[in-house]
Amino acid sequence: MDLNRYQSELEDVKQTRHATKRVISEGLEEILYEPLPVLDHGFVRVVDYMGDDAAIVQAARVSYGKGTKKVNQDQGLINYLMRHRHTTPFEMCEIKLHVKLPIFVARQWIRHRTANVNEYSARYSILDKEFYLPNHENLAAQSQSNRQGRDAVLQGPYADQVLDMLKRDSEQVYSTYEYLLNEDSEGNVLDEERQGLARELARMNLSVNYYTQWYWKVDLHNFMRFLSLRADAHAQYEIRAYADVMLKVLEKWAPMTYKAFEEYQMHGAYFSKTALQIIQDRLQGAMKEPKEYGMSAREWAEVAAKLGL
Amino acid sequence: MDLNRYQSELEDVKQTRHATKRVISEGLEEILYEPLPVLDHGFVRVVDYMGDDAAIVQAARVSYGKGTKKVNQDQGLINYLMRHRHTTPFEMCEIKLHVKLPIFVARQWIRHRTANVNEYSARYSILDKEFYLPNHENLAAQSQSNRQGRDAVLQGPYADQVLDMLKRDSEQVYSTYEYLLNEDSEGNVLDEERQGLARELARMNLSVNYYTQWYWKVDLHNFMRFLSLRADAHAQYEIRAYADVMLKVLEKWAPMTYKAFEEYQMHGAYFSKTALQIIQDRLQGAMKEPKEYGMSAREWAEVAAKLGL
Amino acid sequence: MDLNRYQSELEDVKQTRHATKRVISEGLEEILYEPLPVLDHGFVRVVDYMGDDAAIVQAARVSYGKGTKKVNQDQGLINYLMRHRHTTPFEMCEIKLHVKLPIFVARQWIRHRTANVNEYSARYSILDKEFYLPNHENLAAQSQSNRQGRDAVLQGPYADQVLDMLKRDSEQVYSTYEYLLNEDSEGNVLDEERQGLARELARMNLSVNYYTQWYWKVDLHNFMRFLSLRADAHAQYEIRAYADVMLKVLEKWAPMTYKAFEEYQMHGAYFSKTALQIIQDRLQGAMKEPKEYGMSAREWAEVAAKLGL
Amino acid sequence: MDLNRYQSELEDVKQTRHATKRVISEGLEEILYEPLPVLDHGFVRVVDYMGDDAAIVQAARVSYGKGTKKVNQDQGLINYLMRHRHTTPFEMCEIKLHVKLPIFVARQWIRHRTANVNEYSARYSILDKEFYLPNHENLAAQSQSNRQGRDAVLQGPYADQVLDMLKRDSEQVYSTYEYLLNEDSEGNVLDEERQGLARELARMNLSVNYYTQWYWKVDLHNFMRFLSLRADAHAQYEIRAYADVMLKVLEKWAPMTYKAFEEYQMHGAYFSKTALQIIQDRLQGAMKEPKEYGMSAREWAEVAAKLGL
Repeated sequence: MDLNRYQSELEDVKQTRHATKRVISEGLEEILYEPLPVLDHGFVRVVDYMGDDAAIVQAARVSYGKGTKKVNQDQGLINYLMRHRHTTPFEMCEIKLHVKLPIFVARQWIRHRTANVNEYSARYSILDKEFYLPNHENLAAQSQSNRQGRDAVLQGPYADQVLDMLKRDSEQVYSTYEYLLNEDSEGNVLDEERQGLARELARMNLSVNYYTQWYWKVDLHNFMRFLSLRADAHAQYEIRAYADVMLKVLEKWAPMTYKAFEEYQMHGAYFSKTALQIIQDRLQGAMKEPKEYGMSAREWAEVAAKLGL
Repeated sequence: MDLNRYQSELEDVKQTRHATKRVISEGLEEILYEPLPVLDHGFVRVVDYMGDDAAIVQAARVSYGKGTKKVNQDQGLINYLMRHRHTTPFEMCEIKLHVKLPIFVARQWIRHRTANVNEYSARYSILDKEFYLPNHENLAAQSQSNRQGRDAVLQGPYADQVLDMLKRDSEQVYSTYEYLLNEDSEGNVLDEERQGLARELARMNLSVNYYTQWYWKVDLHNFMRFLSLRADAHAQYEIRAYADVMLKVLEKWAPMTYKAFEEYQMHGAYFSKTALQIIQDRLQGAMKEPKEYGMSAREWAEVAAKLGL
Repeated sequence: MDLNRYQSELEDVKQTRHATKRVISEGLEEILYEPLPVLDHGFVRVVDYMGDDAAIVQAARVSYGKGTKKVNQDQGLINYLMRHRHTTPFEMCEIKLHVKLPIFVARQWIRHRTANVNEYSARYSILDKEFYLPNHENLAAQSQSNRQGRDAVLQGPYADQVLDMLKRDSEQVYSTYEYLLNEDSEGNVLDEERQGLARELARMNLSVNYYTQWYWKVDLHNFMRFLSLRADAHAQYEIRAYADVMLKVLEKWAPMTYKAFEEYQMHGAYFSKTALQIIQDRLQGAMKEPKEYGMSAREWAEVAAKLGL
Repeated sequence: MDLNRYQSELEDVKQTRHATKRVISEGLEEILYEPLPVLDHGFVRVVDYMGDDAAIVQAARVSYGKGTKKVNQDQGLINYLMRHRHTTPFEMCEIKLHVKLPIFVARQWIRHRTANVNEYSARYSILDKEFYLPNHENLAAQSQSNRQGRDAVLQGPYADQVLDMLKRDSEQVYSTYEYLLNEDSEGNVLDEERQGLARELARMNLSVNYYTQWYWKVDLHNFMRFLSLRADAHAQYEIRAYADVMLKVLEKWAPMTYKAFEEYQMHGAYFSKTALQIIQDRLQGAMKEPKEYGMSAREWAEVAAKLGL
């Protein structure tokens, strides 16, 4: 993998400035190539980008001929586009990230199909000995009410035992991996008398908490779609940790879009036909029970939570 | 997972016949719902489909107004479409598979983005104790010439040792997984005194040779694209094993398309501008050396292999 | 185009019944191959399909291991999936439509990229003399307040004049088209002394109210996405006319999904962070003005409309 | 549309230089924002881009850990990627074009689904009076042998007559369009006594040779896919004219990729299993007739053309 050499090359790149006629994002230029740490060994690093808030406004002008110029009008137009789900102007911006992440997170992430991906190949190269271990505050028990949820954090010596077991197995599978490869990550043969197992086979022994890495490139609309699903409270903590960092990237990249995204996507709420009817009735002073509308207690609990009741 | 109950439900389904006005594929009806075994615990099972050879011909008629009727003309039209890369008529057919496959194979497979996927969730449910172990003839050494290739098969006691190590670690990680979950795959608690770790966390200890399963739905054009890449000699053996079974599914589904696919995609070859020039010259009797055309020895070796030289 | 011959072939197809092991949709079988009329010359015809409500439930079981059996539980599960935007089970169903539609409608429709399309080729064949003319109740004036909206319907002799002009020009461009082609739609040469202009050139003279036709194939999730955008009041009337017919197709195809779609997508509403705050405050009895929250009058008008205020 | 104002804004943009840490393409910077003319009123203008040859090499390194540094090695790696259809590194570059094109060309173009599009809306705004007329050398007769092909160019007064008819009808439909709108393209009302027809309706009278415009954003892999299909001799001349200009854009953008594309995609050829057998036999000196292999005369003609026979 030779990330160190790769890092030092990047240091050179980061010092270099080029002159361009393209629009630039001042915010992203500040953090370009910087690895933003996530979890115990992961990172998100912005490698390249295209466009900014102004590019969205300009694309919208092609469609609508809108001729607004002043900054407050730009924010207004971006709000309008976001509110009315006019997604194509946001598709006109693009970002390319270098991400290091556990395999089980990568498996959730890849489900977002509208993106370009270039992953480190464990058929071709040797994976580093880097695996994810939760820290204590994320070592949670299985929820009893929600099959895909977490409950209270494990406590005391039991928590330590769990971490020890995860660590022990992770080290064990890597030790076998190295033995099977019969070479280290630099490609040096360990035992001249033995043939190493094919890399594409040996890697099958590694567990899904091992880190992989990839380049991931996506347009701004689908970037926000990723965020709205993965920065959500229902997402698994480990992928949410990436989404939280990417939210900050969005704020740097396109501050007006970020503001509109927070207002119109992240912190708003959708109500069904029946929920809407209940709200309308209550705003008129009519206080019927949810079951009178045919709404189940479970669904009403969800609606009430959104309404802060 | 409760595959046994699922299986017995399928047995009922398999006995049922419905009347439909839709076109049917006689070949696929024969194998519908049958698990076709792959590797040591995997399978491919056709769960549903839409269209057949006739549907492709009919779709082409919408575009071209072609009015051919006889079977030999249908084959000719399908050959023509395949030869000239007119892909849209093939997109008019669809297939849905239920596949059980090792996680590392699933990770290659999912790179084909133009498909619908519904995967078994290890956040929500508990994975069975089923992991892939290569059989002896596929336990190959790392190739020295091709970093992502395999060399000779491992022999004798060393091969047994390798398999033992893979098996030992696979069992070890599952044993830890069960302990961490504190429940078995039926959901029975093992130790009432302990809290189980959240499923979405415990699964991180499993290795990528563990089996997962999914529904995978794709149109015929992208099904063939998958096959042309994954039934190829450069694909890793384990995914090729799936592609080989899926080739037989294609033959059952749309025999004319299968024939055209074999002729025009699987067993043909592409030649670059320079390679084409060399072929043209040689057919005219001019025998110049590849390097006179500026072609490297490595590239010529690839071309010569295609030409059977 | 020879749609008459095509029609009579379809009559044969419609009489044929096949035995299949696949799931069937009783509702869709009833209307399979029937052209459902839209606008003055258009239609939507279901040509094939895959899956039904039960297939969605089954796909969800693969992910979640849910073992619900009874019908009311199936509806509950489908509601749950729709409410929580679990889209992949809906992607497991597919439908193929034969649609005849004006070119300007086709140009809006094609923007939905996640679909397979096979269009009649005017490079290859000759378009029929069929063009769209609005009927009187859809002949609306330009809205003054909304640049992409319609105002009151045109009245009296002016309306007739408008229709006459549209008809006159449509006939004129086709007359020129025929002259340029120098053949009729059956391929008979008109004037042996003249060479016809290439079809791919002659068609450039036709206006976008001329009808084209295509096969359009899409999964159920994207079918509903199309409907939620195109059956909406903001969509242009002419494409909405197609969406309205397709809503009825959905009801036939998957009645439980249709019900959930109506409840959770078509007739619900989304509220922004600020709008949600206003609703929460009002439900608690706090009646502040929208501008105190920083909400513009224009946006409040939209929110108030959703709330029936 | 107000392209003039838009143009003058672009002039300002073109004079501005920003400092960026991103990689730049010297070649594209030269032509950024310049409208490159196509057909009689169309253009292609590069509006933004991401990446260059070096970005492709870098992305490949993430996958393969390749550490080549020198320029000739970069070309070699790019050739290798192109030859072996390793497409993901090319997907790591992106380009955004502003294109003005006739509607019938736009209808072919939009079939390439893996791209982002933002089109000028004729529901919202008024189209300019600009329509495509072929020049004399492209005014070809219908091919008799190939239903979607062109034959000899029309000659003499007949050619002039054809152009006159196209021009006459184009002017007629626009004249009606303006009357129906009852306003000019600046939004000035023509006749205060009349109500204009809704823009979304009036536009239906325009013919498909009218120009539209859009922003089109695509990754480099799909950009080349577009070129390989649309710069091909089988593509209609009018879209090929755009592809030819875009080929020059590719050469400016990523010269090594352009070279590899010419060698391995544009000017190479694919041979079927049987064609390959014939070539192999002939290179060995065996001269059997194509029909002995079961190859039709029509298909052999295609093969012979590729072989320069």
